[in-house]
Amino acid sequence: METDFVARLLARIPADPRLEVPPGDDAAVLRPPALRRTVVTVDMLMEGTDFVLGPDCPPRAVGHKALAVSLSDLAAMAARPEAAFVAVALPRHGGDALGRGVEEGLLALAAEHGVAVAGGDTNAWDGPLVVSTTAIGSVAPGRAWRRDGARPGDLVVVTGPCGGSLLGRHLAVVPRVREALHIAAHFDVHAAIDVSDGLSLDLGRMMAASGTRGVVRTAAVPIHADAVRRAARDGGTPLDHALGDGEDFELILALPAAEAHRLVAAAAAPPLGLAITVIGAVEEGAGLVAEAADGGQSPLEPRGFVHAFDS
Amino acid sequence: METDFVARLLARIPADPRLEVPPGDDAAVLRPPALRRTVVTVDMLMEGTDFVLGPDCPPRAVGHKALAVSLSDLAAMAARPEAAFVAVALPRHGGDALGRGVEEGLLALAAEHGVAVAGGDTNAWDGPLVVSTTAIGSVAPGRAWRRDGARPGDLVVVTGPCGGSLLGRHLAVVPRVREALHIAAHFDVHAAIDVSDGLSLDLGRMMAASGTRGVVRTAAVPIHADAVRRAARDGGTPLDHALGDGEDFELILALPAAEAHRLVAAAAAPPLGLAITVIGAVEEGAGLVAEAADGGQSPLEPRGFVHAFDS
Repeated sequence: METDFVARLLARIPADPRLEVPPGDDAAVLRPPALRRTVVTVDMLMEGTDFVLGPDCPPRAVGHKALAVSLSDLAAMAARPEAAFVAVALPRHGGDALGRGVEEGLLALAAEHGVAVAGGDTNAWDGPLVVSTTAIGSVAPGRAWRRDGARPGDLVVVTGPCGGSLLGRHLAVVPRVREALHIAAHFDVHAAIDVSDGLSLDLGRMMAASGTRGVVRTAAVPIHADAVRRAARDGGTPLDHALGDGEDFELILALPAAEAHRLVAAAAAPPLGLAITVIGAVEEGAGLVAEAADGGQSPLEPRGFVHAFDS
Repeated sequence: METDFVARLLARIPADPRLEVPPGDDAAVLRPPALRRTVVTVDMLMEGTDFVLGPDCPPRAVGHKALAVSLSDLAAMAARPEAAFVAVALPRHGGDALGRGVEEGLLALAAEHGVAVAGGDTNAWDGPLVVSTTAIGSVAPGRAWRRDGARPGDLVVVTGPCGGSLLGRHLAVVPRVREALHIAAHFDVHAAIDVSDGLSLDLGRMMAASGTRGVVRTAAVPIHADAVRRAARDGGTPLDHALGDGEDFELILALPAAEAHRLVAAAAAPPLGLAITVIGAVEEGAGLVAEAADGGQSPLEPRGFVHAFDS
């Protein structure tokens, strides 16, 4: 199965002690780290939906994004990345050059995070580019961050400003892997999720999984400059864009109040170097409410990207 | 990420002790079996290339095939299947019904092999159906079957007749999972690969990886009735089709001669119940040669399915 794209990719990977069998066999054989759980996530990116190839999006950016979104999922579990696999459907015409670009972006990010690219599946067809990534991580037993652990009294923080990622940041995804591992080692986090589909939509998912209500202090939501630009260009308020645009790939965390304050205070300095902000709190109940600066509350409808079918 | 297809899929999965975190989080958390390696394979199937939806190929057959080809890769490593993940790109129009069919085929096969379906990624787009499957298995350290272990003096066997799978068998794939586990437990196998792209092409890969030459006794190659039908319809000899059609998903094994004979003798009876055939031998050298009934040898060009690019 490993001709062309994957064969070339694997030929460029340095030998890795985590692989028991050299890459290129029917499947990869990984030595799981002793006494750790195996964390697995898969993502699929399709040309025309998740990216539009062109001057602003070279194939290299697609390779980067494909692995980055999966690493962001691992970060949201506080898992250490170990290995990655990539299956591609390349257009029959021009697919070889496209594949080489995808490879560059993917390998650069894999090297940055110490990920062993261990296998894949190459396909050619008459359709557009499709890239599916599988990322494997590890975490100590019982230490994975879950989305169902938020408790009333927790505060909710986000690791960076949101909104307007479509202006370019949705490609240059910076998965919060190292940050998540540092936070997990030093702070008591009750629940976590990454902002893939929208800050309010993903927070709503955390609240639904936890059986709690999220109170969002709208004045405290960190708004990215891109959200302001998108609001000026496409309408809506910057806050709307921050709450609903998605693909920010920041982390939403729920922590006990004292831990949240400690994290915010520590975040700006190394090794984190992040602008972490308290954006709200967890209460008994369900759903989301927006809390204005004067304390007035109103229902907040989770918004974000959902895959729609017309039948 | 888990809306629609994946959410529905996961809701139908019985609780599984191998999963530390309930399905539906940012990633799955698996408890790897103690003292075993983790085996990982990914495959992508695209509508129009790997299957053509229609009366002969309902969506259920696509779900079956998507998981079956990955399980066949695990079988070729003598790995026990543990978990599976599925990423789909569903056509925006009609994709929901299509997804339900895919789900049925996938879940039925997963249940048959005790595989925990543990996560995935749902996408909708204006393109055709794409399904990417990740299968996770386990194997004892140093016990995975590799393709690079064939040695001069070994015999080569195949677990069933080949050729003509395009007439329908390429959809109704029967992954040789249980058979592989039984053989691995009772016989000394030096090398293995599954017949995905073509009996001669995949045997050629085993020989190339092992640094050996394969001698194929052409009169001994088990020819499927479908290969005879395809030869009558589309030309070529039945042997050509057996050697080059691919998607048979039988296993090619290289074993010491005595082990090969013992395996062939045992195979027809339960628990194997397979028509395993010696099709040739491993020699020093490189490439493949065909050996006729009279002992005459000629070069054998590996043939099968390769993904072609036009640039």
